[in-house]
Amino acid sequence: MSDEPLIPSDAQPRGFRFAAVKAGIKPSGKLDFAVAVADQPAAAAAMFTSNKVQAAPIAIGRRHLQRSAGRVRVVAVNAGNANCATGEAGLAACEQVCRAAAGTFGCPGHEVFPSSTGIIGVPLPAEKLVAALPEARRSLSRDSDSFARAILTTDTRPKVAHTAVSIGGETVRLAGVCKGAGMIHPQLVPHATMLVYLFTDAEIEPAALDEFLRAAVERSFNRISIDGDTSTNDTVLLLASGASEVNVAASDAAFAEALTTLCISLAKQIVSDGEGVTHVVELQIEGADSDADALKIARAIAHSPLVKTAWAGCDPNWGRLMAAAGYSGAAIDSGHIAIWFGNLPICTDGGRALDFDEHAAHDYLKRREYSIRISVGSGSGRCRFWTSDLTAEYVRINADYST
Amino acid sequence: MSDEPLIPSDAQPRGFRFAAVKAGIKPSGKLDFAVAVADQPAAAAAMFTSNKVQAAPIAIGRRHLQRSAGRVRVVAVNAGNANCATGEAGLAACEQVCRAAAGTFGCPGHEVFPSSTGIIGVPLPAEKLVAALPEARRSLSRDSDSFARAILTTDTRPKVAHTAVSIGGETVRLAGVCKGAGMIHPQLVPHATMLVYLFTDAEIEPAALDEFLRAAVERSFNRISIDGDTSTNDTVLLLASGASEVNVAASDAAFAEALTTLCISLAKQIVSDGEGVTHVVELQIEGADSDADALKIARAIAHSPLVKTAWAGCDPNWGRLMAAAGYSGAAIDSGHIAIWFGNLPICTDGGRALDFDEHAAHDYLKRREYSIRISVGSGSGRCRFWTSDLTAEYVRINADYST
Repeated sequence: MSDEPLIPSDAQPRGFRFAAVKAGIKPSGKLDFAVAVADQPAAAAAMFTSNKVQAAPIAIGRRHLQRSAGRVRVVAVNAGNANCATGEAGLAACEQVCRAAAGTFGCPGHEVFPSSTGIIGVPLPAEKLVAALPEARRSLSRDSDSFARAILTTDTRPKVAHTAVSIGGETVRLAGVCKGAGMIHPQLVPHATMLVYLFTDAEIEPAALDEFLRAAVERSFNRISIDGDTSTNDTVLLLASGASEVNVAASDAAFAEALTTLCISLAKQIVSDGEGVTHVVELQIEGADSDADALKIARAIAHSPLVKTAWAGCDPNWGRLMAAAGYSGAAIDSGHIAIWFGNLPICTDGGRALDFDEHAAHDYLKRREYSIRISVGSGSGRCRFWTSDLTAEYVRINADYST
Repeated sequence: MSDEPLIPSDAQPRGFRFAAVKAGIKPSGKLDFAVAVADQPAAAAAMFTSNKVQAAPIAIGRRHLQRSAGRVRVVAVNAGNANCATGEAGLAACEQVCRAAAGTFGCPGHEVFPSSTGIIGVPLPAEKLVAALPEARRSLSRDSDSFARAILTTDTRPKVAHTAVSIGGETVRLAGVCKGAGMIHPQLVPHATMLVYLFTDAEIEPAALDEFLRAAVERSFNRISIDGDTSTNDTVLLLASGASEVNVAASDAAFAEALTTLCISLAKQIVSDGEGVTHVVELQIEGADSDADALKIARAIAHSPLVKTAWAGCDPNWGRLMAAAGYSGAAIDSGHIAIWFGNLPICTDGGRALDFDEHAAHDYLKRREYSIRISVGSGSGRCRFWTSDLTAEYVRINADYST
């Protein structure tokens, strides 16, 4: 009944309030419109999808951040409609929502940051969102749980993380809320309808905030893939309220590490809650010519339907891993490839390991989460990457023609 | 009972005999070892997978063609074992089979062209193939049906095509036999265990044959994708026996066209028989900046799990097509994208077409074969590409851990 919030109140970064309402966008009638409101204009940094088809809120959000020089008072997110491939009318609908939100919460229009997720190519019913704003205002609170629920689409559960870091003896709080599920192959200056909202009560200038964000995203959201599809709406937003009155200098190592840890936690939650996912796999690629080559190999493996279906069947078919590494485009030394499932030797010198134990390998792959390490040569290039299996349930979810 | 052969005897290129036997490689006990024997050393051209992990027969086949200066007497293909990731032992096993075949059919070892398809990473039992050679020799005939059956793996049916072309008033015959199914995203200098054997009784020099082959493959096998995985064993081999005594000059247009038509027929059969495929889709991309850009867009769409699952559900979710075009890396004019399903207008100027008829679109997508045309701008770049849907059955086939 009186549930503990997902983010305990004393862990919640100071200076933000949240609300979510049912605006009637989701056919299910669930919460579908969420707002986060900063007590004062917060410093902001954002990264957007690299997809050349970009939703209206991406264009508007980018423009607003420029006009406000990186300040945001209100984040307004609807789920159920992506407002993408909606032309001029889509831009107008997004602007209409932003103007109304500015009026409701008392800030300039360009301090409203909009996001949308859901179906592409259907006009956004802006009037429903506008009509829902007064109720959103009335229900603002320090609890972000309903915000975390409202932004979900095919996700099965809300995804949040929080941490704190001590800087100069003072505590700075960080928290994040995100949604993912399908179309996940973030390429932030790329990602897939993945929406991520990060909050901190640190005091950080927008330019420094931007650097912190890019570095953290590179090691987290740009290292995950569910289906290889990069969405038109992917967004990661980081807001710093300054409410802790703790100033964080550009490139402060402790803050950077805390932010990266937070982002990796959220990124792994997104993979784990991916559509139809039954296994979460951490790929550890090493021995590549460069980190970029290691990443190419990880991505080829993470996007291979043959690899991903083998994982769904707990099948230790390591030949498919080798084949994917082989067509990744990265340099590999195929006669010296070595593969381990956890600590189990699977492949050595490009062939089946002498002590390969098929039953042990099969058993290991029955775990929900596991790691696969692949050495592709003698270089120093490496990466970690998180991905999932591809199941019949994924197909069922995405082939379900319900309109 | 007395079935007509798949390739009628008068359509079969002169100068070749075929056989297939049960060597005991396939656990099912079905035909698994096929040979094609040219009456005289045939001119030969081949293309191989671009995967950096390459099976033993790829290395040996390449070497033999060099030594023989493009001449082949015997093609020896086993199914059930890919002889890949098998190290030095795999190379030795392949050579052992070639030496034995050379002895059986009376030719130098380097005139034997080996192929293997099946599971990766399991030692090839060469002795079983060697033991089966005498029976293969005894059963040689002009009928290629059993050859076409023996090379299959998860394919559900043999795939053959034939045509004839008149050159200087004389008839030249062409025929092809192939297998495909999973791991199909040929990139010949590149393909996925796709094996293709093309035969003609034309008289053509190896260098000219090579040019004909490359041009035809570029417009056929390099324009298909089932799952985006490029195999370690893909091979296309073209043999010219010269038995028609009709000399074909380099770049003869009629022969080139006939060969391309033959290859497109086989390529489409491979897609149609892909694992779990219920829809075959011809993509027609136009208006791109270049043909290369058009191909990038086709490949991104053909590899998108979200697009392919929507097709499985006959779902006219054109937003997923736009999203895939958007992340393809090709230049697109997102405000002017237009999409047609057959002749049905779906999307115009980057948004839903005014006369979009969802029910008609849904009905159209229920066909087994259909076309989707996408205009991405005002350039002259274009391509045709054939691909398939992604079904729960595909997942079931590839997740089935049966060892």
